[in-house]
Parts: sequence; structure tokens; C-alpha cells
Amino acid sequence: MEPGSRGAAPGGVSVSVSAVLPAGGSGERLGGATPKQFCAVQGRPLVSYAVRAMERISWISDIIVVVSPENIQTMKTIIEKYGHKRVTVVEGGITRHRSIFNGLKVFAKNEFSSHLLQKPEVVIIHDAVRPFIEEDIVSKVVMAAKEHGAAGAIRPLVSTVIASAADGCLDHSLERARYKASEMPQAFLFDIIYEAYQQCTDYDLDYGTECLHLALKYCKTNAKLVEGTADLWKVTYKRDLYAAESIIKDKLSQQVCVITNVKETLAQVGVLLPESLKSQIKVEAISISLSKNDSHLQNIISGQCYNFVCVNDKRCAIQEIQELVDMLEKSNIPVLYPVVLILVHFSISENNSFSIGVEDLTTIKKFARETKKKNILVYGLLIQYK
Amino acid sequence: MEPGSRGAAPGGVSVSVSAVLPAGGSGERLGGATPKQFCAVQGRPLVSYAVRAMERISWISDIIVVVSPENIQTMKTIIEKYGHKRVTVVEGGITRHRSIFNGLKVFAKNEFSSHLLQKPEVVIIHDAVRPFIEEDIVSKVVMAAKEHGAAGAIRPLVSTVIASAADGCLDHSLERARYKASEMPQAFLFDIIYEAYQQCTDYDLDYGTECLHLALKYCKTNAKLVEGTADLWKVTYKRDLYAAESIIKDKLSQQVCVITNVKETLAQVGVLLPESLKSQIKVEAISISLSKNDSHLQNIISGQCYNFVCVNDKRCAIQEIQELVDMLEKSNIPVLYPVVLILVHFSISENNSFSIGVEDLTTIKKFARETKKKNILVYGLLIQYK
Repeated sequence: MEPGSRGAAPGGVSVSVSAVLPAGGSGERLGGATPKQFCAVQGRPLVSYAVRAMERISWISDIIVVVSPENIQTMKTIIEKYGHKRVTVVEGGITRHRSIFNGLKVFAKNEFSSHLLQKPEVVIIHDAVRPFIEEDIVSKVVMAAKEHGAAGAIRPLVSTVIASAADGCLDHSLERARYKASEMPQAFLFDIIYEAYQQCTDYDLDYGTECLHLALKYCKTNAKLVEGTADLWKVTYKRDLYAAESIIKDKLSQQVCVITNVKETLAQVGVLLPESLKSQIKVEAISISLSKNDSHLQNIISGQCYNFVCVNDKRCAIQEIQELVDMLEKSNIPVLYPVVLILVHFSISENNSFSIGVEDLTTIKKFARETKKKNILVYGLLIQYK
Repeated sequence: MEPGSRGAAPGGVSVSVSAVLPAGGSGERLGGATPKQFCAVQGRPLVSYAVRAMERISWISDIIVVVSPENIQTMKTIIEKYGHKRVTVVEGGITRHRSIFNGLKVFAKNEFSSHLLQKPEVVIIHDAVRPFIEEDIVSKVVMAAKEHGAAGAIRPLVSTVIASAADGCLDHSLERARYKASEMPQAFLFDIIYEAYQQCTDYDLDYGTECLHLALKYCKTNAKLVEGTADLWKVTYKRDLYAAESIIKDKLSQQVCVITNVKETLAQVGVLLPESLKSQIKVEAISISLSKNDSHLQNIISGQCYNFVCVNDKRCAIQEIQELVDMLEKSNIPVLYPVVLILVHFSISENNSFSIGVEDLTTIKKFARETKKKNILVYGLLIQYK
């Protein structure tokens, strides 16, 4: 496969991009036994949200997740359970920098890994514990890295930063407006960050935390700083897990997928419905027939969308709906949450009698009863017009 | 009243202490219309939690809450609704520093306020949007301020701090271990911080954020830095409100108040029960009879304790329980949450028959039915022994 061939590149510019997600942390600050990246949020490990966020960006080729040796099997199980694609698990080092370096080595020719991947032009480095990243900021950081060699998201400081003297007293405080918090994602021309890691000292590898610093120190590359959104924050303390849980819950109930196969004269329904819903909730619209191989729909389902409106004008679309139900079942979503599926059936009729027969109604009722056992709630709506 | 006479001083040292809580912020970063200090968390405004946290520390004399002119009535309503004591509401200025200065002026002789309060030796400055402060850290900061003239809580940095150049690129990054985040509470010898505010420039008052900096710049006082707990964080973004909500919910279900009037031979129950519960949940124990004027019990209720175990050996303690129910009702707690009240009745009996009559049982049942309507759930437990 040609690098960058997977989807439209960021900003329409052709650039091959892969991502490295260090996930080797011990989660000491969280105060729990489970490292935070493996903590379940709404029943799903945090790292899976971060991987999914990367996965949904079509122009990212490979996603390298770096975990400590004891968590390799856990990570592989997560990848299988949540159907992650394009992910390679790599064994981490004892520090953050050593883990990232290991991740980068997969793209470089050396003895480290037998599974060599195509070297990308730009590599994204993102934390496994920052689950709410949007394509927009990733794209901005990648394009800035392509131009400047390195780039990173920043945020305003929440607290004043101070330096303490040896006696534990205040030495001086920094003027808050002049400084920023360095966040993730960061991105680099692969050759620059790899060169920096090859050059850097053991002290840097053991005690450093900042990739932008390495690019500056060893490659004289001043990273472009890109203002990020509040979403970019890092799950650090237990309270952050609470916050992540609430944000995910909020998002879940505010998303609907409208699927329509209604054509021609009725086609406007497929446009008007999503448009009118958009002001209320997040809407994904698919205007094609359902198919098991529809990767867009697969993506929406893997994005934990729990509400579906299916608009159709066929006499009885049970078979198509059955395919959607199969996909949902396979996704494991209904195991955790009720899924709502509203079938809107348009029917052209010349007289006032219902064009849908008792037999069809019975079939739909029976179907709904069966899917209810699987925690998928099917509701039907028949709209008849002349 | 003599300063410091309210309760045991921190560390057993005699020092008069009051607190100023700036609560004039607009909550821009929260993205909501309501300033964050007035946002409801579990049905109660955030500022009320911060005030309560201060109020529960018996050696703090006065609590000054500084709010913007348009919120003075809101704040007064909150004080009345949640029964806050020792609180004075002061009109804030247009910036944080101007608001704090206004708060301090209440303790100083000048034209600002007709309601002059006794000047404390040490003044605590704490944010209204940091609801989870514990007495321990307040005490440490106050004692350090008494010794050093100024003191403040600090926390490790979560993100690396960087300085940007004029072109929006990285200039340099700070070595994370050398710097700290300056948090609240802070405390000062009153004369030092008041002098600093009187001396400082309009530029400081309009653009500054850090009280420790003012004490250093204008009074040459190097504040003592005290390592704080993760609880000290400031509610800044919407996700922080989510986190606060979850933390409060967590705390609610992990607290029980054991009230016992069982004497002598049975007294060990009053000791053993709280002791054995302590490993599981937070326990407050009161070993006296219930009384409407018991300020300790009032404090526990205002601390939103929702679980009570009342141990007694009287024939029928309905009247005392009724007083507790009255206090709970007055506190508004049962309006929002179910309150659980477990009555443990010890009965000495010489034979095997129940010493509690059918009449008593009927009374208790009827009582439980009535209180249930008020969302107070009463359960009885009769323990008979020879």
C-alpha cells in the first residue's frame, strides 16, 4: 500500500502519516492498581477510546501502541474485543521517552522488530490517556509539523507556575500569560524526531518528558505551537476518570445515525431529517442501502452510536434491518447499552387502505420482540402518502 | 468575642484566623452562562461547598465571600438556604486582585465598610471553586504563614510548561521537576498582605493573579510552599463540574453518623460500632443524647451526611428520633436525597419474651411510614440480651 493512500490527507495535502501512542505508564497519580490507560470508562478501557479516535481519521496509516511487557496480552485482547484495525502493539521501555523511541523504531530499519512498517513522512505522538481528540486538531498539528519539522498542541495555564528555592520557599512566579501548558498531540517529520531520539543522552531518555524539547535540543527544530481545545486534557487523577465517564455519557445520548434508502421524490426526507436534527444532536447521515461491508457504517457503530433512524420505501425492509442488527450485535454495544432503532417506512398508496399488510406487521412485531432480548429496541413508523 | 476563641487553634498554637473567598469570577472557561461558583453540583452551588469546608474548621473566625455586585443577592440567598454561619458578603472589584483587596478591607479601618470585623492575625485566601479542602492542609498553610509571613499550597505540574517565541514557535521548555503549580489555599500575616495590596500598582491589580507574588514584590516576603493534595484542584472547565459531582456522590455514600445514648455496660457498642465501620466508610460518632441544639450534629447534617445509626437502650426513643427527623427536614437534605436512619434498640430482658410491646412496634411502624413520605427511611433493629 502506498503511504497516504488510505484517505484524504489533512488539508488536502498529500502526506503519509502514522501515530505512536505511548501507553506504558503506571498510573501512580491515579492511586489505583490498574494503570489509567486500562481503566474502564463506561465499560471500555481508556486506551481503546484513544485508539478509536486515531482510527477514525482515515489518513492515519498505522497506529503503534506502546505498552509495558506485562500488558502486551491485555492490549492485544482489547484490540480484538473492540475490533481495532491498523494497530501494532510494541513493547515499551522503562520511561516515557524510551517507550516512544521503541514505537518509532518499528518504522526504521533495525534489529528491533521483525514487523517493519512503512516509514511515514510525519509521525503523530499522542497519549493513550487523552481520549477526546478530534480530527481537526490532529490535522492542524500534522500540517504544522510538515511545514516546521515539529508541532505540538498547547493550552493556557490553569494555575500560576512558580519556582521554589532550596529552602522550600517561593523563589519567583512566572507571568502566566507568557507561558503555556504543552499538551498532546504532537507531530514531527519522522526523520527529525527519530534523529533526535538516536542522538539524545541516557539522561534525556530517563528523566525527560517533552518530545518538542528533544527536537529543539538535538535537531535545532523550533516546534510550531498550535492552540488546542479544552478536550485535549490528560486523564491523570481519579477525578479525571469521573469527568471522562460523564463526557462519554453526554456524547452517547447526543448522537444519532440516519440511514435512508429512499430515492427520488422522497430523497428530500433523507436530507431534511438530518438537517432538522442537527441543531439538537450530533447526526451522521448515510444515504445508501445498508450493507455489511459498509465501512462508514462500521465506523459509526465503532464510535458507539446508539441511536438509528432507518428511512425506507420498500415494502418490508426486515432483511436490511437484520443486517444492521447483526452488525450491532457483533460490536458488543447492546451488551452494555440499549440501542434504539427507529424504522420509518414511506409508502405510496392510491387509496386510503394501508399498503402494509397484517402479515408484515406481525413480522415486524415478532422481529422487535426478538431484538429486544438482545437489548436492541426497534420502533416502527409508517408514513403513507398519495 | 476574642479572636481565636472559637475553637482549638491550628497545631494547638494560639492564632486568630479569618478567610477571604474570592467568588467574583465570570466562569468564561466553563462555557456556560452561570459563573462556575454558582453552578449546582448535586443540587447545591459550588460556592456553598467551599464555604462549608471553611465553616467546619472551628478556629476560623470570619469567612468573607467576595462576589460581583449582580450576585450579592444570590450569595445571600445561598447563605440563608444552606444555613451558613460566620459569613460576610462583600462586593468585589473588576479583577481577582481587586476583589481580594475589597475582602481584606473589611478587616481594616477605612471608609469601605460599615461592618468592620476583628482583624485576624492570619488571613486565609481560598477560591470559591475549590470545594474539597480539608482542615489538615488549611492548618499547615496557616501555621507556615504565621512563621514565614506568607504560605501557599503547591502541586506538581501535570503538563510541561513551555515559553513561546513571538512567531508562535517553541522558545524553550521548563524542566518540570523544578517548577510547581501554585494552588490555594494561601495564607498571610494580615498586615503583610494588606500592606502589599496597598502598595501595589494598578497594573498588578488589573493583570496579576498571584497573591504570593505580591507579598514577595512589595513586602520582600518569600512564601513558604506547602505540598498539597490532589483534592485542591480548581473547578475550571465543564469536565471539572462532572468530576466534582462524582466526587461528592462518592463521599455521600461513604459517610455514616453513629448516635448513641447507650451507657455503662453497653457503652462499648458505641465505640466498637464506629471502629469496625471506620475501615469501610467515613464515620462520625456522637455519644450523647440527641438535642436540637447540638451544634456538632448540626454540622454533620450540614455536611450532607445521609446515613445515621442511632443506638439506644430506652424503651422507646421515638421522641428523640423525631428531633433528628425535624433537623433533617429543616436541612432540606431529604428533598434531594433519601436519608437512611437505622434505629438500634438494646433491651435487657430477664426472660425470652420481647421487652418491646406491640404498641411500641405499631408506633415505630407508623412513624416510619410518615417519615418515608418525607424521603427519610427509618429501619429498626432490636437486640435483646440477658
